[in-house]
Amino acid sequence: MNDRAAAATGGVPADSVPWPGGARSAAAFTFDVDAESAVLWGSPGTADRMSVVSHQAYGPLVGVPRLLDLLERHGIRSTFFVPGYTAHRYPDTVRRIADAGHEIAHHGYLHEQPTALTEAEEVEAIERGLAALQEVAGVRPVGYRAPMWDLSWRTPALLAERGFLYDSSLMDADTPYELAVGDTSLVEIPIQWALDDWEQYCFLPDITGSGLIETPAKAVELWRAEFSALRDAGGCWVLTNHPFLSGRPSRAAALSDLMAEVVACDDVWVAPLGEIAAHVRGLGLTPRSIEKPAL
Amino acid sequence: MNDRAAAATGGVPADSVPWPGGARSAAAFTFDVDAESAVLWGSPGTADRMSVVSHQAYGPLVGVPRLLDLLERHGIRSTFFVPGYTAHRYPDTVRRIADAGHEIAHHGYLHEQPTALTEAEEVEAIERGLAALQEVAGVRPVGYRAPMWDLSWRTPALLAERGFLYDSSLMDADTPYELAVGDTSLVEIPIQWALDDWEQYCFLPDITGSGLIETPAKAVELWRAEFSALRDAGGCWVLTNHPFLSGRPSRAAALSDLMAEVVACDDVWVAPLGEIAAHVRGLGLTPRSIEKPAL
Amino acid sequence: MNDRAAAATGGVPADSVPWPGGARSAAAFTFDVDAESAVLWGSPGTADRMSVVSHQAYGPLVGVPRLLDLLERHGIRSTFFVPGYTAHRYPDTVRRIADAGHEIAHHGYLHEQPTALTEAEEVEAIERGLAALQEVAGVRPVGYRAPMWDLSWRTPALLAERGFLYDSSLMDADTPYELAVGDTSLVEIPIQWALDDWEQYCFLPDITGSGLIETPAKAVELWRAEFSALRDAGGCWVLTNHPFLSGRPSRAAALSDLMAEVVACDDVWVAPLGEIAAHVRGLGLTPRSIEKPAL
Amino acid sequence: MNDRAAAATGGVPADSVPWPGGARSAAAFTFDVDAESAVLWGSPGTADRMSVVSHQAYGPLVGVPRLLDLLERHGIRSTFFVPGYTAHRYPDTVRRIADAGHEIAHHGYLHEQPTALTEAEEVEAIERGLAALQEVAGVRPVGYRAPMWDLSWRTPALLAERGFLYDSSLMDADTPYELAVGDTSLVEIPIQWALDDWEQYCFLPDITGSGLIETPAKAVELWRAEFSALRDAGGCWVLTNHPFLSGRPSRAAALSDLMAEVVACDDVWVAPLGEIAAHVRGLGLTPRSIEKPAL
Repeated sequence: MNDRAAAATGGVPADSVPWPGGARSAAAFTFDVDAESAVLWGSPGTADRMSVVSHQAYGPLVGVPRLLDLLERHGIRSTFFVPGYTAHRYPDTVRRIADAGHEIAHHGYLHEQPTALTEAEEVEAIERGLAALQEVAGVRPVGYRAPMWDLSWRTPALLAERGFLYDSSLMDADTPYELAVGDTSLVEIPIQWALDDWEQYCFLPDITGSGLIETPAKAVELWRAEFSALRDAGGCWVLTNHPFLSGRPSRAAALSDLMAEVVACDDVWVAPLGEIAAHVRGLGLTPRSIEKPAL
Repeated sequence: MNDRAAAATGGVPADSVPWPGGARSAAAFTFDVDAESAVLWGSPGTADRMSVVSHQAYGPLVGVPRLLDLLERHGIRSTFFVPGYTAHRYPDTVRRIADAGHEIAHHGYLHEQPTALTEAEEVEAIERGLAALQEVAGVRPVGYRAPMWDLSWRTPALLAERGFLYDSSLMDADTPYELAVGDTSLVEIPIQWALDDWEQYCFLPDITGSGLIETPAKAVELWRAEFSALRDAGGCWVLTNHPFLSGRPSRAAALSDLMAEVVACDDVWVAPLGEIAAHVRGLGLTPRSIEKPAL
Repeated sequence: MNDRAAAATGGVPADSVPWPGGARSAAAFTFDVDAESAVLWGSPGTADRMSVVSHQAYGPLVGVPRLLDLLERHGIRSTFFVPGYTAHRYPDTVRRIADAGHEIAHHGYLHEQPTALTEAEEVEAIERGLAALQEVAGVRPVGYRAPMWDLSWRTPALLAERGFLYDSSLMDADTPYELAVGDTSLVEIPIQWALDDWEQYCFLPDITGSGLIETPAKAVELWRAEFSALRDAGGCWVLTNHPFLSGRPSRAAALSDLMAEVVACDDVWVAPLGEIAAHVRGLGLTPRSIEKPAL
Repeated sequence: MNDRAAAATGGVPADSVPWPGGARSAAAFTFDVDAESAVLWGSPGTADRMSVVSHQAYGPLVGVPRLLDLLERHGIRSTFFVPGYTAHRYPDTVRRIADAGHEIAHHGYLHEQPTALTEAEEVEAIERGLAALQEVAGVRPVGYRAPMWDLSWRTPALLAERGFLYDSSLMDADTPYELAVGDTSLVEIPIQWALDDWEQYCFLPDITGSGLIETPAKAVELWRAEFSALRDAGGCWVLTNHPFLSGRPSRAAALSDLMAEVVACDDVWVAPLGEIAAHVRGLGLTPRSIEKPAL
């Protein structure tokens, strides 16, 4: 454990952590392959809306293949968070992701929002998601991201008990850290709302979205600005795209431009989250705790 | 059936289909002539709001004539989806569209959202729409677009039974395909929310809209980016404008610029949806099924 | 009545009307001086929110004086729609508007939404508004704009009975027209949501607004585009600003730039709505009727 | 009391006030360190959402240190409005702010919206806030800003009774003024929604935000335009940033650029609000009253 990493102790996130090969910062392109699950959970009647279903299906049917091509073209290995329901409905798509060398990580079974579940329901969602990924792709994921980016205070322990290495659902740091979970810990790789495509692109009447749809140029400008500033800060830039949104041609084209810019930065380590987490684990950081607010 | 088209089998949309004359991609400018129907269905009290009614009336009264002029200037034949109620309230406008050589297609009677209807109600909406278009314009439409872009799982069969050639309400592909409907099929010409003017321009307090109104330059930037990328991908770009929105002078002017750009692309086939559907039907694609999500 | 004007008969708005001095089009800068009334009507508890009240008070206290300076600098005479409540609460401001040579027009008493009122309530709102403007500024207005731009089907007759010359609340044309009201008529000077500053600038938590606030540059770009296109079309561009919004320094500065551009157009007639209405009345247009939608 | 200041009498805000050293205008960078309090008050169940809590925690953990660095680099002393709950949860952060020479001001205890409280509750919120700031940072604040920028009509008297010098929650002027409070007064330093980062950046599903997230370039363009225009007007530009939002790297970078531009203006007095209030108090302005609207 070096000095910089030591700054992660005491409940305060480190400004940065050392990156492999002397890199200045890290970057990851990640994808949440929600497909239908994101609109079905908590709202089963949405299954009756064929157009809505088709809107979500665009992700695994068209978006994922296009995005896999992009990633290959730019030589990027990525992390795909796949709900178990998506794996069951689109097994070929999920296998194709895995076969291309990308990481498959956990994203619930039916995209269940953890904070809306009982503990038994949350356990069931995790177990069903694990079983589906195992069954479909032969994968035992080491990483988890909470559906709706809404981790419960129970989730970290449930993940640690099941041998997960990392979570990627919290928003309180620019760099990964060890999150204390009882006597053990999870690597936490933070995300943030500005590095997500949902707010920029998603619109489904009565279901989600501001009602406005941004241009790809605007979305990429937002993400690029944060990439540049996090690079300066030595942080870990984690972009999240949804194939049903960013798999559309013009958005994929803009994302491709951004990928080219990012991989052209010699001082940035581009990696899937699993590798980032393994690297952070190797630093031997002192875990820090997050205290639930008392009222 | 050629090899590319064969890729449409197996439940996965094709990357592309062959286009007439060796064109690289296809493009259609379409118009949903909702007028008052879009604010009256499900909310009859809106009829009491004279300003709201006048906002919608702008479409057939001013927007359609202006847009017909644009289309003529650019030599574009288009598809107008006309609710039966619009045909009854504005028969001259609807006849003028037909007389200008554009396709009139079905868009419900009072813009009824299919997923909110019983089967009997959905049948009634389709039948009343057919009767109105026949009565007013002497047209038997071959194409259908679900009001609110919200197709029910029942709709395709109801359309096939009535001899429709195509639907344009789903969002799971970049190119048209044959949608399996029992033993037969419909041509499906996909749309998407980013290629619609409602999200960019529409605001009616307490009724619809994000509350924000974008510039025509921004809207056209969004549509142009997707046109360019779908052209590269060999897809079918289907833009939807509402005359009560895009018939406003500055929006029509921006749309005119975009029309000029699109028709200047020699490798793009610009056509009404009915002709695109007929072309696709001629390819003899194997229909693909969409399975309703089970929970 | 000339040929072009004759086009206004038959229920269809004219493409244009002849403008004085051979002008190509007309333009008006109008202001809705809602102040507190817009947040109090229908929600009297808002009076308890001192910050909200102060947000609205900015209009008559700071915005109006600044905007009057702008108008004077650019030599523009304008129309201010003043709710009676504003006149009672800020009599000096309202007299200052009138003294500067601008038109004072009717905008309800407490900004009452006409479609939410009984006929008796609507009559009362009109009468109280008239009394307040008379009492405070010695003005008998000839023009009316519905609060919330939400005219009822009753309003035109109530206005005609009271000798109003014009209304400015409908949205179904690019140019003014004679609106049939029984055996008589009102001049209607249409407005539209894209030519309003509320959608661009207004945010009051729990009360109104998309939650987003645009830059003055974006708002002016939107309004300029429509000015330019309506000028080409020979229409009548009617911009609406609220002093509590567009009276802020950077918005007023951007509006000033736009004013300079508009008055620099020699072929555009810039006038208050009362003069535009009088001109239109002089054309002897055949009134057109708007039929309430039947269901 | 000089002539310009005299213009503040009579219930109308002055166009400007004289600034120290002959400065043309004043400017303040202020920060509301809401952290968790802003999402917990009135909605205690939000404490169960670990991701949401972490989103808010980013402010004191990462945002404040970064922003303190920025302020130091640009030689700016600022005002931080700190809820008592934030002081108790992040005492080191709050002490660090004070130690860096910035002003700590009052922002409620748990970010309680004053207009939603009884008088007893409002008193309790003020007293608990005072006690927390005293206990944690040894500070007796002279300034107050209402949580949710929603001052009640009671608040000014409660502040005056406790010896506060100023409030910064009203929106009816471009320059500070003396707000009459019975026989005494408070200096009021106005704010406005367009000079806040919440509307530009904040998104928490089901909790707050338009759903859209703007680029730092757009936000800074908005703030810069108002800075420039208020500078011309001789006003007092008060920008409000939230560390959990504007402490993100790319937003902080854009804010840093804006800070550089502002401090480079030799004719602008950049100061914390406490110093601005003290200066205004020294002008001996005649207090003006704001009357609660009667209905």
